[in-house]
Amino acid sequence: MVFRCFELYEHKGKLSAVNRGGKPAHGLPGYTSCTEIEDPVDAAFIYVPAEGVLGALEDAAAAGIRNAVILSSGFAEAGKEGAAMQEEVVRAARDLGIRFMGPNSMGFANLAHGSAMTSVKTRLPCRHGRLALISQSGALLNEMGKIAHLSGIGLAFTGATGNEASMSITDLLEYLVDDDSVGAICIYSEGIRDHGRFMAAAMRAKELNKPIVLLKLGRSEISGAIAQAHTGSLIGDDGVFDAMCRQTGIIRVSSLEEAVTTADLLGKIGPIAPARIAMCSISGGACALFADLSDEYGVEVVQYTQETKDALRAVLPSFASTLNPLDTTGALVQHPEIWHEVIPILARDANTGLVIVSQPIPNTDAERLTLSSTIEAIVAGFRAANKPAVIVDFSVQTRSSEQIAFIKEAGVDVPVQGLDIAVRALAHLQRWSERVSRPAIAQDLPAPCGEHPVGERETLQYLSSRGAPVIPARLVATADEAAQFAEELGGRAAYKIASPDIAHKTEANGVRLDIAPGDAKETFASIVAAASAYDPSARVEGVLIAPMRDAGTEMIVGVTRDPEWGLAITVGTGGVLTEILEDSETRLLPIDEAHARDMVLSLKGAKLLQGFRGSEPADLDALCKAIVAIGDAAAALGPDIAALEVNPLRVSGAQVEALDALAIYAA
Amino acid sequence: MVFRCFELYEHKGKLSAVNRGGKPAHGLPGYTSCTEIEDPVDAAFIYVPAEGVLGALEDAAAAGIRNAVILSSGFAEAGKEGAAMQEEVVRAARDLGIRFMGPNSMGFANLAHGSAMTSVKTRLPCRHGRLALISQSGALLNEMGKIAHLSGIGLAFTGATGNEASMSITDLLEYLVDDDSVGAICIYSEGIRDHGRFMAAAMRAKELNKPIVLLKLGRSEISGAIAQAHTGSLIGDDGVFDAMCRQTGIIRVSSLEEAVTTADLLGKIGPIAPARIAMCSISGGACALFADLSDEYGVEVVQYTQETKDALRAVLPSFASTLNPLDTTGALVQHPEIWHEVIPILARDANTGLVIVSQPIPNTDAERLTLSSTIEAIVAGFRAANKPAVIVDFSVQTRSSEQIAFIKEAGVDVPVQGLDIAVRALAHLQRWSERVSRPAIAQDLPAPCGEHPVGERETLQYLSSRGAPVIPARLVATADEAAQFAEELGGRAAYKIASPDIAHKTEANGVRLDIAPGDAKETFASIVAAASAYDPSARVEGVLIAPMRDAGTEMIVGVTRDPEWGLAITVGTGGVLTEILEDSETRLLPIDEAHARDMVLSLKGAKLLQGFRGSEPADLDALCKAIVAIGDAAAALGPDIAALEVNPLRVSGAQVEALDALAIYAA
Repeated sequence: MVFRCFELYEHKGKLSAVNRGGKPAHGLPGYTSCTEIEDPVDAAFIYVPAEGVLGALEDAAAAGIRNAVILSSGFAEAGKEGAAMQEEVVRAARDLGIRFMGPNSMGFANLAHGSAMTSVKTRLPCRHGRLALISQSGALLNEMGKIAHLSGIGLAFTGATGNEASMSITDLLEYLVDDDSVGAICIYSEGIRDHGRFMAAAMRAKELNKPIVLLKLGRSEISGAIAQAHTGSLIGDDGVFDAMCRQTGIIRVSSLEEAVTTADLLGKIGPIAPARIAMCSISGGACALFADLSDEYGVEVVQYTQETKDALRAVLPSFASTLNPLDTTGALVQHPEIWHEVIPILARDANTGLVIVSQPIPNTDAERLTLSSTIEAIVAGFRAANKPAVIVDFSVQTRSSEQIAFIKEAGVDVPVQGLDIAVRALAHLQRWSERVSRPAIAQDLPAPCGEHPVGERETLQYLSSRGAPVIPARLVATADEAAQFAEELGGRAAYKIASPDIAHKTEANGVRLDIAPGDAKETFASIVAAASAYDPSARVEGVLIAPMRDAGTEMIVGVTRDPEWGLAITVGTGGVLTEILEDSETRLLPIDEAHARDMVLSLKGAKLLQGFRGSEPADLDALCKAIVAIGDAAAALGPDIAALEVNPLRVSGAQVEALDALAIYAA
Repeated sequence: MVFRCFELYEHKGKLSAVNRGGKPAHGLPGYTSCTEIEDPVDAAFIYVPAEGVLGALEDAAAAGIRNAVILSSGFAEAGKEGAAMQEEVVRAARDLGIRFMGPNSMGFANLAHGSAMTSVKTRLPCRHGRLALISQSGALLNEMGKIAHLSGIGLAFTGATGNEASMSITDLLEYLVDDDSVGAICIYSEGIRDHGRFMAAAMRAKELNKPIVLLKLGRSEISGAIAQAHTGSLIGDDGVFDAMCRQTGIIRVSSLEEAVTTADLLGKIGPIAPARIAMCSISGGACALFADLSDEYGVEVVQYTQETKDALRAVLPSFASTLNPLDTTGALVQHPEIWHEVIPILARDANTGLVIVSQPIPNTDAERLTLSSTIEAIVAGFRAANKPAVIVDFSVQTRSSEQIAFIKEAGVDVPVQGLDIAVRALAHLQRWSERVSRPAIAQDLPAPCGEHPVGERETLQYLSSRGAPVIPARLVATADEAAQFAEELGGRAAYKIASPDIAHKTEANGVRLDIAPGDAKETFASIVAAASAYDPSARVEGVLIAPMRDAGTEMIVGVTRDPEWGLAITVGTGGVLTEILEDSETRLLPIDEAHARDMVLSLKGAKLLQGFRGSEPADLDALCKAIVAIGDAAAALGPDIAALEVNPLRVSGAQVEALDALAIYAA
């Protein structure tokens, strides 16, 4: 069964069969050892029982083989004993200088270059193309291959890495990013290994405009638990992972069909500019469905210029509208030649990046008879258009080989399967087109500054010293100092006891709000007295005085260190809204002001900052500068910093101030 | 081409061909008029050019025919002239006593009863089953039929109503709800006609547990505009339409694949109780994918009891987990007999309503060889289970006739197509199961009470008289009255000028907050004086005094009249959150307290009411009583009431009070 795959995938290299008895197999010469094979051997394809793998590796190494695929299962995926056996194999391979895919892998098929060591049975006929499918799970790789086949999408590469004891998805990704035969990469993963290399490969793909579409588990808690049980993969913090994807241009999807369709579409079209869609169909129903789905999945459609509308009016029936999506009306069934003009008109609009024609593709002889003049007219329209254009079928339909031949003869790419998946893929195309044009991260992380602030006061001081705006609070040790600082501030102020031994300041009666400068001395004395009364043994450092502020808008800015992807910064809506909105945006550090602005404007709570209900609009430049400064300040604390949180960062018009902050270090 | 459909759909009735020349056609006897046909005729199937439709109708009527399907296009869908011609046809048909589908309809095929007058070319072989597909758009009906065919789903009925000049989707729905051959109804609609009858039919379907799945356009603004241009359908307020669906058990979906798959699944399974899912697969990847998709689409999975976990441990390999979704591990490929035990164990759990086994279905001979023992073992497990169980394929795949035969021989229903669509359908199954068990509306609307309150004060008084809790405010005309009422209230109070000529009370310096009872007279005088100074010609009715309240949680309760579906009540989170959360729930009136509780708990802002951040939890009973009372009070204002809004309805612990209210009447 496995052997048949060499044929299915049109493997071109020489094959030899090695087995205990040295018997010929599948028409190949048989050997008892790799060392007996006359020619040098590139790779060993091992599918012996688990117990025999170690011996097979040793034999391969003796013949100078440095690469292997281990199909055999019964290792880490099958409990403790298997895991121990796997460790043995890993150690042996390292000593023998062999790198391998597996164990419990289904191998790879490099269709573009005619080599295959795989047990994934692709559907026939094998369709060649530019899409690469890679997966940890063999079952889901097989499924993605079936989807591609059903949709008429051709493949350049497939591979299932299995237990990833030696080679991982990252190794395959590195290879595929640099292989010109590959136009797009579709990944199913339960957890990424080799994070630095993975990110570097993704950034290289971004530079090459080569899309990476990733179906990664772990969005839900329970899937994380299953994946841990399943392959022992570590599922990282999902928000940070999403940030990594966004910044490196990786498109994350949630279903197998979406993964394959999106990768194929992005690979074929490339980034579009402007990233907006013009859509049309002879079915008003399909247009309206497209509009509703666009709304649901966040696809931005073109608003046509007056020029475009006038041009459309000149070629369409009088009762047709000039909306986008555009219902070209059933009149085009009788007059398909109108397509020659409609499509170039839509493409010519300066706001259009891509033209979509939604049209069922003939699948039976009868349909072909009815529809071929329409398809031909649409293709002619595509040829006359100055922007990319794609046909989208109404629903997911089987693509028979005859149908694919018909379509290709007509001169178009295989249409996207179904409005629902197509609109999801278009939403990804838009986001990807926008993201590949932006730098992933701002610059290098700042060098460690050697400081180590502890507690609210030191952290605020440190932030201030690094250029982050901080409320002008001061610790005063005497009533006179209090009076002097109160005078400096001018307005009303808040007073708080400063003592390492008093955690609950309010309970200790250690807080006074809205105090006039003239009452400074009295207030200082009263707070210190109250603290002594509350806990006579408490060390009192003094009183912290800060100017009174109205509520403004409260934001939260937090920097955390992800064990996999490094330092990340999160900006969220603070105050009473935090828990209700669950509103935050995360990016990997370092960021620049453009990243910060993108984060802030992506928040639901952004409305609060934009002159909500007549309040003064926040100074977004000042806010973004503050966010960047906080991120850089946290990073400059060096490798020990685990988290730094500013909560709240108060924003009121042009005034942006950290009111409270805390740094936490790795133990 | 059209004629071939009689054969494709196995039409059993007698056919006669009527045409100008009276020539035989398609092997049928030919007549120049319906009146010449010897036997009585049930229906006329008219596909002549638009200009000939009127004559054909007259001829049919002369032969005593009372029903027709008009396939001919070129009517309202093709501009003004066509619309005029359609009106003529409608008038003539009314005079002739003929009801008809169309024009521009693709007719219907009643597969269950062997009659067909249609031009929808179903894919072959025609698969009989219990699903009914109805649509305004012929193109999309055709597409839904193709999806059903691809998925191996059998049909009982298909119909496309076209321009709906005489018969509408509602007419078909009424028929299908009462036809026992039909197990589920799937509708594509651009706008419902005959709203009262539609709702009544939906409620009857709900009582029969017969699912109605509806793909209705108009969720987005642009799709509404297209549908208006397309068929002239009126797209109603979407929130009210959603409320109607929720209350009548209609499941609303957003794609063609989702529509067909969901209708079929709900029809086959029926409502489940408890409405929770147990899922398992030999692929850990499929389990984790299912978990992530469940999270995304809101599917609730079972938490297994300890008993279930123990039972699973006894039959599964030692390294397997007992999570839900359950990764049964690859060991079941070698030992499929474990399925016999696993499935009944999952079904037996008291929390399980449905068992899902995700498993690729063999499609090629090779796959059939590998997988048939697994499929057989799963089917044996299904037979031994005491709850419904369904197989879900990993992805959307073609169902060939051979494959369907194989599956049916194995003794299972055709599996659901693909994890993504399946999880969406399961989310609908859960919601539907919950909804069909609840009464649609509470009781009858209250009878009109003859009152007609105008303005804030009268409306609040009216609400109070109908049992809705209202802040105890009073209009006082003199300083003495003010003092007396302030004394009655006891605590601090708010004072507002009451004048029909002063709209902006604050601008007129006509508002005083937080006034002690002793300052009542002075405050009254000051407000009246300020009002006179602001506008000497303003009529002053007095001063409105109300007790001061802290913010509490502000809600909005609004009743509106929808032109299509009648009175609806909306509850939303009020105050500063309104615009940011865009948080509201709508139901058709009347509602009871259970409906009100469901609305309140469905709000994102519900957290604010449930003891958020240490505040006192709101008295939900009191809040729900108030909501019901407001709805009933609005309805009792009779047919002229257009809207009544309470904003804010203040909630603070056990205290629920309308602070402001306004009624608006139809002009």
